[in-house]
Amino acid sequence: MERSNELPGIAEALRRMEAGELRARDLAEMCLARIEARDAQVQAYAACDPARVRAQADEIDAGRRGGLLAGIPFAVKDVIQSADYPTTYGSAIYAGHRTGRDAACVALSREQGAVLMGKVVTSEFATQTPGPTRNPLDLAHTPGGSSSGSAAAVADGMAMVAWGTQTTGSITRPAIYCGVVGYKPSFGLVSTAGVGLLSPLQDTVGVLARNVGDAAATVLGIHGRRFETAPADSRYRLGICLSSQWRYASPEAVQALRSWVDRLASAGYAISERPLPAEFEALIEDQGRLVAYDARHALAHERRTDAGRLSARLTARMASGEDIDLPSYMAMQQRAALGRCRAGMLFDGVDALVYPATDGEAEAGLENSGSPRHGALWTLLHLPTVALPVASGPGGLPLGVQLVGRYGDDEALLRIAEHAASHGVDG
Amino acid sequence: MERSNELPGIAEALRRMEAGELRARDLAEMCLARIEARDAQVQAYAACDPARVRAQADEIDAGRRGGLLAGIPFAVKDVIQSADYPTTYGSAIYAGHRTGRDAACVALSREQGAVLMGKVVTSEFATQTPGPTRNPLDLAHTPGGSSSGSAAAVADGMAMVAWGTQTTGSITRPAIYCGVVGYKPSFGLVSTAGVGLLSPLQDTVGVLARNVGDAAATVLGIHGRRFETAPADSRYRLGICLSSQWRYASPEAVQALRSWVDRLASAGYAISERPLPAEFEALIEDQGRLVAYDARHALAHERRTDAGRLSARLTARMASGEDIDLPSYMAMQQRAALGRCRAGMLFDGVDALVYPATDGEAEAGLENSGSPRHGALWTLLHLPTVALPVASGPGGLPLGVQLVGRYGDDEALLRIAEHAASHGVDG
Repeated sequence: MERSNELPGIAEALRRMEAGELRARDLAEMCLARIEARDAQVQAYAACDPARVRAQADEIDAGRRGGLLAGIPFAVKDVIQSADYPTTYGSAIYAGHRTGRDAACVALSREQGAVLMGKVVTSEFATQTPGPTRNPLDLAHTPGGSSSGSAAAVADGMAMVAWGTQTTGSITRPAIYCGVVGYKPSFGLVSTAGVGLLSPLQDTVGVLARNVGDAAATVLGIHGRRFETAPADSRYRLGICLSSQWRYASPEAVQALRSWVDRLASAGYAISERPLPAEFEALIEDQGRLVAYDARHALAHERRTDAGRLSARLTARMASGEDIDLPSYMAMQQRAALGRCRAGMLFDGVDALVYPATDGEAEAGLENSGSPRHGALWTLLHLPTVALPVASGPGGLPLGVQLVGRYGDDEALLRIAEHAASHGVDG
Repeated sequence: MERSNELPGIAEALRRMEAGELRARDLAEMCLARIEARDAQVQAYAACDPARVRAQADEIDAGRRGGLLAGIPFAVKDVIQSADYPTTYGSAIYAGHRTGRDAACVALSREQGAVLMGKVVTSEFATQTPGPTRNPLDLAHTPGGSSSGSAAAVADGMAMVAWGTQTTGSITRPAIYCGVVGYKPSFGLVSTAGVGLLSPLQDTVGVLARNVGDAAATVLGIHGRRFETAPADSRYRLGICLSSQWRYASPEAVQALRSWVDRLASAGYAISERPLPAEFEALIEDQGRLVAYDARHALAHERRTDAGRLSARLTARMASGEDIDLPSYMAMQQRAALGRCRAGMLFDGVDALVYPATDGEAEAGLENSGSPRHGALWTLLHLPTVALPVASGPGGLPLGVQLVGRYGDDEALLRIAEHAASHGVDG
């Protein structure tokens, strides 16, 4: 899918800036021009101050700051704090609210020279009530959520990369709906300091980017590390993880996954099928109940003091957690912990798992952001995932897959995902 | 150790309020009087507005709000947000800083009718640089940290219970130093939403209280649950967990632990010794390195923009995380996750573990808050702990022990701790 402007990838941009052929200001202006041209319609940004953007880029060009991401324009989901913009959590309750602090991922991006473009729209407190953002590939369709602005901004060339968060499927789904890559790191790899939490044992910070290399460069970059790609002749072993959730995937989404895997098999990958053991099936339902319970706790202040400005959908979601008692809650936490301990078995003999990413293409309309279900298990288990668009659906919008890796082996998963993305190309 | 004023325990206070023999306002006034009389010296509070305290108590007495903690005066560590007071994180950088939100534990306490007395002092960002608080048992001694104000306020009768946090030993140590109970719940039991995070996979919200019943009533109370005590004729099986860390415990601290356990054995408990397996010994060093790495990330904004107002000690601590690369960091996270999976083996044949809580009594002077080391492993492993003062040391200050329970079995641990506290009494 051709991108909407001439923005290079991160590695190429860094190379060209190093060679003096491109300035950070040029990259910033490309993104600003795109925002100017398109964001009145797309509505990806919650806040963007062009003067601040240019000032940061000029500092990089003047050589006053460097780093592994020097000059790379990035955006930040509005549940993640930044010192120089409001943080609204996608709620009218916090319109204009300023915390005065950068979240860890924002400050670390700046420390590596990245240029903050602004805050991008989140659904309400990163739950299921959408903000105004539209899908840049078709404005009549949802961009997905809750990292809706992150996905839309990157897909439309308004930022090179954007930080998002996932509690169930909030990176994976908007990535596929908008036709970009969504990388949810292993839990704990990116600090949640400065992030508005919903379900602290699930909430995971990750990125939306135009390709796997950019996603990897950003997340490894804040750790001071460069991404190394896999040798071209790598041939990985992928296990198609079959679960009860496949019944929700449309025939086209399943076909897209199967065709992609067939192409990889033709390219020499070893493909097997892996039915999900029953003990993991049971965790999928627990995950939704844990989030409902946790949301009632995380948003207790807003429930108590400003209930009238919470959406009916969020209020109902929290109410669904009311009938869970503490012993049931802790039993679910114990089962989740046990599941994390036993997740290694899913990878016996394979390098990564393949799993559906969404039910299908982005739905028409903006009222619903689609189901996050395909992310639930992997978020609960703390495993790294990379969502890749792999085909166009009958409606002309993207269909995709997820690759799932072992806990903590993010660099291996990213290498596989990058390699597979280039070797699974249609035709 | 006799408490410094006539404040009843939570269960008794609730009973007397229910019977009309006591008002919430009376409890609030007892705490306010104590603050008035003592806090110029103890300096437990970072902020307390008596008018706000009285207004909340009067609301309870007027019957406008109820709940499982109706009328119970509580205090909150100043790394935990509250809507009506500044949240300073114990740093000059955030003097007067207001976030406008209650953290989950604060809002849930209020939802159950508890009366917020104010914010209590934390060490700098909950690390090792102390605030001004003194030990109320001896003003020339440290109260411990980082939940220094929480422990001191409760020990001195300025609140019935206080929320604190622990990343290494920040509840356990001040509890013992100030002669109160410190309960660190299983990780995930109390939401960290609204808490200034330092090391998100370690940071645990818990309470300091004057007895186990009060600690249990508070933490279970925010989940809408009442604490049930153990039958008086219970006889538990305790395993003394022996590790390399015992070499740091003073002979008096070890003697206090041994004598306490002997008394429990006389009371019919089954006592055994459990050498800590080597794989867990290795995690103790990892824990400190994980926190150093995480602190560099969590406080990246302050490092970048206000380094001059960070303490030299915190700056050095963060610098010690600089030489850790991402693969080493994630290897530590993987080992920690594996340790959590294998921690069940520590409880084979026992109901709880007994472990040192501090090296010894609170040290003289306010420059150092003592070593958090005895909490490190249990925080990393996410296991619930209850710290209990069990004896007086040669300096006249308390010595204590920790009880450690299985992940998620907090109610069982609290029952054991309450029973053991009453059956392990000296003489």
